[in-house]
Amino acid sequence: MPSPAVAGTAPSRRPWTLRASARPRSARELPPEHPFAWLDGTARRRAEAGLTRRTVPRDADDGLLDLAGNDYLGLLRHPDVVEAAADAVRVWGAGAGGSRLVTGDTGLHHELEHELADFYGAEAALVFSSGYAANLAMVTALAAPDGGAPPLLVCDRHNHASLIDATRLARASGARVALFDHAEPDRAAEALATAGGRSLVLSDTVFSVDGDLADTASLARVARGHGAALLLDDAHGLGVVGPGGRGTATAAGLRGADDVAVSVTLSKSLGSQGGAVLGSRRVIRHLVETARTFVFDTGLAPAPVGAALAALRVLRAEPGRAEAVRERARRLAEGLRERGLSASTPDAAVVSVPAPSPEAALRWRAACLAAGVRVGCFRPPSVPDGRSRLRLTVRATLDEGDINRVLEVIETKRPR
Amino acid sequence: MPSPAVAGTAPSRRPWTLRASARPRSARELPPEHPFAWLDGTARRRAEAGLTRRTVPRDADDGLLDLAGNDYLGLLRHPDVVEAAADAVRVWGAGAGGSRLVTGDTGLHHELEHELADFYGAEAALVFSSGYAANLAMVTALAAPDGGAPPLLVCDRHNHASLIDATRLARASGARVALFDHAEPDRAAEALATAGGRSLVLSDTVFSVDGDLADTASLARVARGHGAALLLDDAHGLGVVGPGGRGTATAAGLRGADDVAVSVTLSKSLGSQGGAVLGSRRVIRHLVETARTFVFDTGLAPAPVGAALAALRVLRAEPGRAEAVRERARRLAEGLRERGLSASTPDAAVVSVPAPSPEAALRWRAACLAAGVRVGCFRPPSVPDGRSRLRLTVRATLDEGDINRVLEVIETKRPR
Repeated sequence: MPSPAVAGTAPSRRPWTLRASARPRSARELPPEHPFAWLDGTARRRAEAGLTRRTVPRDADDGLLDLAGNDYLGLLRHPDVVEAAADAVRVWGAGAGGSRLVTGDTGLHHELEHELADFYGAEAALVFSSGYAANLAMVTALAAPDGGAPPLLVCDRHNHASLIDATRLARASGARVALFDHAEPDRAAEALATAGGRSLVLSDTVFSVDGDLADTASLARVARGHGAALLLDDAHGLGVVGPGGRGTATAAGLRGADDVAVSVTLSKSLGSQGGAVLGSRRVIRHLVETARTFVFDTGLAPAPVGAALAALRVLRAEPGRAEAVRERARRLAEGLRERGLSASTPDAAVVSVPAPSPEAALRWRAACLAAGVRVGCFRPPSVPDGRSRLRLTVRATLDEGDINRVLEVIETKRPR
Repeated sequence: MPSPAVAGTAPSRRPWTLRASARPRSARELPPEHPFAWLDGTARRRAEAGLTRRTVPRDADDGLLDLAGNDYLGLLRHPDVVEAAADAVRVWGAGAGGSRLVTGDTGLHHELEHELADFYGAEAALVFSSGYAANLAMVTALAAPDGGAPPLLVCDRHNHASLIDATRLARASGARVALFDHAEPDRAAEALATAGGRSLVLSDTVFSVDGDLADTASLARVARGHGAALLLDDAHGLGVVGPGGRGTATAAGLRGADDVAVSVTLSKSLGSQGGAVLGSRRVIRHLVETARTFVFDTGLAPAPVGAALAALRVLRAEPGRAEAVRERARRLAEGLRERGLSASTPDAAVVSVPAPSPEAALRWRAACLAAGVRVGCFRPPSVPDGRSRLRLTVRATLDEGDINRVLEVIETKRPR
């Protein structure tokens, strides 16, 4: 059944829906001198450009086939994961109770960090309340000034929003920033040649919009050739890329490299919430002591810590889940092309399908939803090239019948 | 029992402890050309200044009297809260599965937002994965450029780190920034007089280090006198300040004001994790559509959402918990003064006690811990004035015997 808010006309039946309309009712327009009056104009401009967004609550069991979420391994509702989360709440309470440096540090956090580091082949790991917070920490702490020449951050132009915000914060603290053309290590090398002191290369490993991979091994070669550190965001790589889902660093021959730091998320393949940074002990110690989103944030709640730990153990016990994700994504992309649709070539769990306009993308998504298939829809400003698309994500647990149903729905609901 | 890592000498018995030493073993010192070699020097300088920090995992039930956490209402292990978190995991899964704008939006999120807004007297609320993320969203989205003169952000000098980072990001997008002397609304007025266009006043309501209050009513008067919006961080006010813990905006006569936006946290009084912004529908709609830590972050996991909702319901049913917190804090501060110690005058749940040096503060905390009382210890750079102190937080559930034991331990373990 289509969600009313996606259809955009029918009123919601839910008492707790915010009912924020794309355009404020004229009766409620603010006088121009009101400090928030400008919000009405910006909302109108977004509506006119077809770029309105709203939250659309789903039901716990809506019977839809979901190809929009990031539960790549199908572990979000795995019984071991659910029970581990419930146990963690009972043993440790509903929250961490404070910063990890005050009273919010539990044995459970350390157990997860130990097993994550071991799985990823790093000396140490540090867990954060989100992947966003992990990225802010990794970049701002490792690109912090040290009294010498300002460090230079060399960044892929398509890096995730959290890496971009992290880069802005690092620049505010004195770092220099250079952007290089998307997935072009040679352009990164040119930027590094301008460095006068410490330098760091910063890139997603799997880019979230189209699911394409960075050439991580070449980036590492380039970074090392210039004495630079390499910082990677492997949010979409952990659990999907590399042997048994061990991630992009392992796949690129960088397992345990002490000049590389990697962030991952606990909210995608591990079906939970939070993020982590993996690296050498000295890197992790530096984050513990200086990273503001670690020092000044409440520790990740016990339930998501326990869930992520259980999910990691399922993945270790069933390493075939990682390959299954990649196989499903390839099968989906091939099927789309066989039906005359464009599709990205998936290296991980994401397949993107171009749409003619933001409005067409929204209509396409709504029509798929009405047919029982939830797909993602990315529009500006969430797409680095400004082009709207459907974004499909696969799960290891999709079967051949699911894939065929998705292909059928996407093809028949294609906007003409 | 003292934690070995606090004592700083005994090795940890836990296999999963990181064992990060304050000073790297010389055998592992990196050659100077290594991109992370500089970390050893900064670690050494922190150690020499007595500013080493490390994570110290606690056990689930360590028998300590905790005056370091932010579980002000004693709800973190309340049976209703624990069961609601466990139920949420079973019904909705261990994670939200994606951004709230894609597939991560659940009915449970909206239920919490509806009840939070109602409790706080706001039109609408929006939940984030952390209070840090809520603050980044509130400030960057509401101080975003709109094509006119750059907005001016007028900020208390002692604002929380998350507000400072948010301000840095807003400045990176073009906002101007002026700082005013801590808790001096007249100085805010002087800064506002320099505004050429939109302006916003930004302040904590309860400052986290000493627990002192901003003069929120005066800030609102000053902001309105200059046509400015008022943005408040009520992280330590919700559940503690105002009638029944309804927060600082209500206490200051700003309930429902449409020129005010407020952030709160779910990880202190509500014993869970996450944050929220409260405001008018147009403010919340603007955040949904533009705030990067909302659009590009995975939704808060169901367990902490369910826990916060249950905690809010306990608070509504037992409004006396809020007054109990304030009474316990006053009692603690009076008792400290009766024993010849300095103590801040608490307006909320926090009492701070000056220490002669960072090292003395650490020793004092360690001695209290050895005597069964966990207290917080704030040192630079977590203190705006550079002065180290013990930071004590009370809970509504502390009894007279607990308070007396704390007073006894803090006095007798005072560094001489």
